[in-house]
Amino acid sequence: MNIQEIIAKKRDNKKLLKKEIDFFIQGYTKGEIADYQASALIMAIYINGMDEKEITDLTLAMVESGDKLNLSELGNVVDKHSTGGVGDKVTLILAPIIASLGIPVAKMSGRGLGYTGGTIDKLESIPGYNTNLSEQEFINNVKKIGISLIGQTLNLAPADKKIYALRDTTSTTESIPLIASSIMSKKIAAGANKIVLDVTYGSGAFMKTKEKATELANTMKKIGELAKIETAYVLTPMDEPLGRNVGNTLEVIEAVEALKGNIADDVKEVVLELGSYMIKLAGKGNNLENNKNMMLDNIYNGKALEKLKELVKNQNGDVTFIENTDKFKKAEFIYPVILTKDGKEVEGIISELRADEIGKLSVFLGAGRIKKEDKIEEEVGIQLNKKVGERVNKGEVVACIHANNKEKAEIAVEKLKNIYKLVDKNINT
Amino acid sequence: MNIQEIIAKKRDNKKLLKKEIDFFIQGYTKGEIADYQASALIMAIYINGMDEKEITDLTLAMVESGDKLNLSELGNVVDKHSTGGVGDKVTLILAPIIASLGIPVAKMSGRGLGYTGGTIDKLESIPGYNTNLSEQEFINNVKKIGISLIGQTLNLAPADKKIYALRDTTSTTESIPLIASSIMSKKIAAGANKIVLDVTYGSGAFMKTKEKATELANTMKKIGELAKIETAYVLTPMDEPLGRNVGNTLEVIEAVEALKGNIADDVKEVVLELGSYMIKLAGKGNNLENNKNMMLDNIYNGKALEKLKELVKNQNGDVTFIENTDKFKKAEFIYPVILTKDGKEVEGIISELRADEIGKLSVFLGAGRIKKEDKIEEEVGIQLNKKVGERVNKGEVVACIHANNKEKAEIAVEKLKNIYKLVDKNINT
Repeated sequence: MNIQEIIAKKRDNKKLLKKEIDFFIQGYTKGEIADYQASALIMAIYINGMDEKEITDLTLAMVESGDKLNLSELGNVVDKHSTGGVGDKVTLILAPIIASLGIPVAKMSGRGLGYTGGTIDKLESIPGYNTNLSEQEFINNVKKIGISLIGQTLNLAPADKKIYALRDTTSTTESIPLIASSIMSKKIAAGANKIVLDVTYGSGAFMKTKEKATELANTMKKIGELAKIETAYVLTPMDEPLGRNVGNTLEVIEAVEALKGNIADDVKEVVLELGSYMIKLAGKGNNLENNKNMMLDNIYNGKALEKLKELVKNQNGDVTFIENTDKFKKAEFIYPVILTKDGKEVEGIISELRADEIGKLSVFLGAGRIKKEDKIEEEVGIQLNKKVGERVNKGEVVACIHANNKEKAEIAVEKLKNIYKLVDKNINT
Repeated sequence: MNIQEIIAKKRDNKKLLKKEIDFFIQGYTKGEIADYQASALIMAIYINGMDEKEITDLTLAMVESGDKLNLSELGNVVDKHSTGGVGDKVTLILAPIIASLGIPVAKMSGRGLGYTGGTIDKLESIPGYNTNLSEQEFINNVKKIGISLIGQTLNLAPADKKIYALRDTTSTTESIPLIASSIMSKKIAAGANKIVLDVTYGSGAFMKTKEKATELANTMKKIGELAKIETAYVLTPMDEPLGRNVGNTLEVIEAVEALKGNIADDVKEVVLELGSYMIKLAGKGNNLENNKNMMLDNIYNGKALEKLKELVKNQNGDVTFIENTDKFKKAEFIYPVILTKDGKEVEGIISELRADEIGKLSVFLGAGRIKKEDKIEEEVGIQLNKKVGERVNKGEVVACIHANNKEKAEIAVEKLKNIYKLVDKNINT
């Protein structure tokens, strides 16, 4: 067996055997197969595709390429993963709710890259919160209080990391076999034995259409089935940002408010949908509507917020910031945004507020990273008072820009004015 | 413009513009585009193809990536190129014939790699022959005696060299756009303004079928047309080796014999076919049959052999070796091959003598290279007394192995016995 033969097979649109996929992943992880050989194979996979058996074999080979977390002593661990969104603070709200229902939550999250944020960056905006725990500390935390949220401290699926970096520079990112195996390999390596997927679609997501998102979701469900990891999914539109706030501290504040019951409709829907499946997969309730009500109960009775405080305290975070979110440092410049056209204030119904544009704007402000090494500014971001379908009157503040730099703030205000589209084409398109 | 966008276009089976192809070739030659990006694009080209305009743009971009020989002061220079074969000594015979007819021959040839030999290696087996001339010496030689055959001293089409090396390790060699542009870029950079192509097909050639060879040939003819380089081709079967001898000195001897009129039928046919087109393209005769007769005349009247001697002398070769080929050093062991089956001599009609197998055997003996750095042994090789369609009687010597190592000679005899296939399946298959 050699890599040239394997490349030639996929080039000719033939199916790869498990041993061939293993040979590729092992050789590439060890550096015995060159980047240029891997990229030729990946392009062939992009163009010719893979069937479910091949994708599963690829996923499992990537799992085997690095560390695997063993969470078996915790019983049924249901993990949750989103394929990415702007303003997605779902984990911060959902994880405490689920833990408050007595279901163990042991979750490793990523950092933000590109225009989508990362849960770990958001958690780290809480002073003192430690995302860097050992495997045993992580497990002990879950045993003690039923929840732990940390960063990726282990070397999970290093083959996926190498392939992911290569895909970015060779225009092979938007491939269902490659996306599905990338996500599932990390989740399986992170020790989950049940997974609920939040598959996003629209301008702010990897998958631009609901059809593509459904295809990706079904592929991952199938991988789960073949790998004996029970998997469910929900589909979430991501044409506009999720919720009201985009930015790290701003999203933590929104999450705390949500756990107090002040939760935006779109966020609420995603949280309840995902949670109802997590509860079902955990074996705690088969009726999804009942599950949603259990979750709402623990929001309204304060148990979910208590669990968040317990989590923060247990990982050395300063819980007084959760108790009083006014303590969070504010950005230096908070500028209101009022929609105008040729210098005159305008009014109408908002028809579009592209998530990807908002995501890019938040990166511009310093809330996200373009490169892995970039530092983020926790307190900057965008507060969206008005979203699609809502009416704006003349002079009304539709949003606020939070920035640490006056010039950036001013530019961002102008950019945001252009991102907001109103229905009346005569006014602002 | 960036390379990711260009890769994405070809990945999606769209046509590349000239400026995009130029951007790729320039960037890759300079090292600004990484190997792994080039290999992704090349795989996309392999799978999705290119139209004639794109292939021509690719060819011309590769020509521009390095030195270009300017032969304009020589007038109409007709170059000849073969896509590769085993036992192919055509240039050694054809070039002197053409030059003897007053048509300038200024040809840069390559060295052998893999199981196909190279004209330069064969010429260098003539003691003293200098293949390493400057551009001006090369041109002066052609002006003086009408012919010069040298190696590739200039940096012709370096982009092609980089891409060629990459293709070998990424299973993207057998692609018509990539083969056609590779060949034509080197020929155009070498200064020809007319090209006759010998496109081989069969077990010993790149193209395994006549259909594929025709497609490649037509593609190159079209590139020539679009690049304003008049191009003709002949198709040559390469299922068994060409002529009787395989190996460097052995092939020089066969070429000298051919110029004395002792020419094998298959060699004669290829030489006359190619030559008749070269004469036509040089504007020296439109009737191909007449052209062939002119060539035969110059074999039988000795002018062609005189031209070879003149060439050898002019490039510091020892012409006495051409005058008396017995002077060439012989291999230490010359072993006859007699076909047997289970220790008993057999007879029959030869049905198969695979060129690729003979090519590999000659490399095993030391006549060729696996890697570029390998040294070759000039005097070793294989003499084929019997070829496909010929009758073999019991005990008859079908071939001789020329080797410098006894063990290798013995192994080669056994190997060659297995390469020869007889029609009667009961005897030897």
